[in-house]
Amino acid sequence: MAQAYRVAILGATGAVGTELLSLLEQRNFPVADLRLLASERSAGVSRTFGGKSLTVEALGPHSFDGVDLVLASAGATISRQWAPRAVEAGAVVVDNSSAFRMDPQVPLVVPEVNPNAAATHAGVIANPNCTTILMALAVWPLHQVQPVQRLVVATYQSASGAGARAMEEVKQQAAAILADQLPPTEAFPYPLAFNLFPHNSPVNEQGYCQEEMKMVNETRKIFAAPDLRISATCVRVPVLRAHSEAINLEFSTPFAPKRARELLGQFPGVRLVEDWQANHFPMPIEASGQDDVLVGRIRQDLSHANGLELWLCGDQIRKGAALNAVQIAELLVAKQWLGVPTPV
Amino acid sequence: MAQAYRVAILGATGAVGTELLSLLEQRNFPVADLRLLASERSAGVSRTFGGKSLTVEALGPHSFDGVDLVLASAGATISRQWAPRAVEAGAVVVDNSSAFRMDPQVPLVVPEVNPNAAATHAGVIANPNCTTILMALAVWPLHQVQPVQRLVVATYQSASGAGARAMEEVKQQAAAILADQLPPTEAFPYPLAFNLFPHNSPVNEQGYCQEEMKMVNETRKIFAAPDLRISATCVRVPVLRAHSEAINLEFSTPFAPKRARELLGQFPGVRLVEDWQANHFPMPIEASGQDDVLVGRIRQDLSHANGLELWLCGDQIRKGAALNAVQIAELLVAKQWLGVPTPV
Repeated sequence: MAQAYRVAILGATGAVGTELLSLLEQRNFPVADLRLLASERSAGVSRTFGGKSLTVEALGPHSFDGVDLVLASAGATISRQWAPRAVEAGAVVVDNSSAFRMDPQVPLVVPEVNPNAAATHAGVIANPNCTTILMALAVWPLHQVQPVQRLVVATYQSASGAGARAMEEVKQQAAAILADQLPPTEAFPYPLAFNLFPHNSPVNEQGYCQEEMKMVNETRKIFAAPDLRISATCVRVPVLRAHSEAINLEFSTPFAPKRARELLGQFPGVRLVEDWQANHFPMPIEASGQDDVLVGRIRQDLSHANGLELWLCGDQIRKGAALNAVQIAELLVAKQWLGVPTPV
Repeated sequence: MAQAYRVAILGATGAVGTELLSLLEQRNFPVADLRLLASERSAGVSRTFGGKSLTVEALGPHSFDGVDLVLASAGATISRQWAPRAVEAGAVVVDNSSAFRMDPQVPLVVPEVNPNAAATHAGVIANPNCTTILMALAVWPLHQVQPVQRLVVATYQSASGAGARAMEEVKQQAAAILADQLPPTEAFPYPLAFNLFPHNSPVNEQGYCQEEMKMVNETRKIFAAPDLRISATCVRVPVLRAHSEAINLEFSTPFAPKRARELLGQFPGVRLVEDWQANHFPMPIEASGQDDVLVGRIRQDLSHANGLELWLCGDQIRKGAALNAVQIAELLVAKQWLGVPTPV
């Protein structure tokens, strides 16, 4: 008897929600029933799944009745409020927001990296921040073999990180600038088209923004390496989709680029893109819509005998968010770590 | 008796040449006579200087007759061929190309950093690469006080770095993409609008591209620190003008961010842009057209007790190229390191 699950997508009309919907279909996730949830504002909109039209419902007290699995991507405030209710109603929540990521009771999971952490869940499993997921995939295969001593990263983050409206705004800004008009700035504090700026999340006392601290703290948690030394500089760039990262790694002994290439080349979820002759390396337009994180430009660090430089691009909405969440759900199903399934 | 000089701009119609022309005027450089030189293709075009129209001449054997100072920005091949002839004709050449930068006989000068190096010139003075100049200005004030042990940089380089045509192409690409058409790619190997890619200069055996090696080698030469440990990752981003850099510095003892701020805040050519409350830091649109390099986000490196993180944006065409060249010329005039001036 095949098993299927009653699934709800919370934040179904957002950039990540839209991707969650199509991934569940593309990957044949065993869906017995699908409920699309969003704010009042988006309620009534329809979406297609498995050839059927579904109407988006406004989130409410009974939204999670009879639901086995919630894929939540509606922001930390909504998750803090509603995830506990979904768990109470018997669902397991894979939460894409930052609400529970650093909660010691909540596993923070990248399925290729720390799948077993998911076993310990008590109803909520957190999906890491996009930049963290992408970096974890590129660094873990090396860290596993030879622990990273220090990591310095600079990011190049696309508009998609701020949602579907932000992606649209960047296009509108570009059109305005090309027409010699003032670019609109609603989703972002400054024009992003033909410009860039340090990530606009709030800054802490040490001068690091939230996005940077996510990379530091979440990577430590995923790697179970609470003392791993990490520093990050997060920057928004006028790319529509897919983030890039320049990563500098230090080990305690030299790490041959050739060995790093071998390890990364065979790691699931990573694809090496390194054509030195053609000067062809990972680019956002080639990472967009892809499941794999593209890694390349693996080089011996000229400034440190034990250093390694690498470069990655990954689809922020896909592996950086929706795909990782669906993979967590698949892991829960495969390991039978989800609640009691509904026989079909 | 005031002194003025017979000046030639080589590559007068390019992005940097255009800026050289306006800087000579804005800064009241003592010009007795101005000759605009370019390729056959651009000859006959006219430009305005000091209210007078000047016709661009094709570069030829007599172009440098009677010229005191050549500001050259027509690429390394042209410079290698023509700079020696200009020197033979009695001119001093401030060369913006990479042709002579690493020549031990040729000073490589950022006037705020190593002005005295210019004294030793034998006819040619090299203007460093744009990314190097911007970084040198932000790092030297600290290095002077406490030598940098190691420097890791990731760049965000605008289209202007590839010239005026490239800036135009990025706009055309953006317009094409907004209209769902294929973007043209002539100046660049890949679309740059809404995309980014590692710098497309040729890659060496260690995997570093020329642009990265310029940052390594030129910084060492300018700082007279031949063993300074530097690693760089250079990336082109869809910004029209002004480069950005995320710089990680290691010292042998801690360097307080407060002290770094004080030093940078009072250094000529640097402007601190750091509003932590408003999340306002250097951005390309605010650096464009500015003489100063904007520096901010000075933070204690979370991953290293002796580390410091900083962020800069600087106008690549201005301080990164034309302004630095004119400042070198001004230095030569002020110190009387130029050839015999013409009485006016």
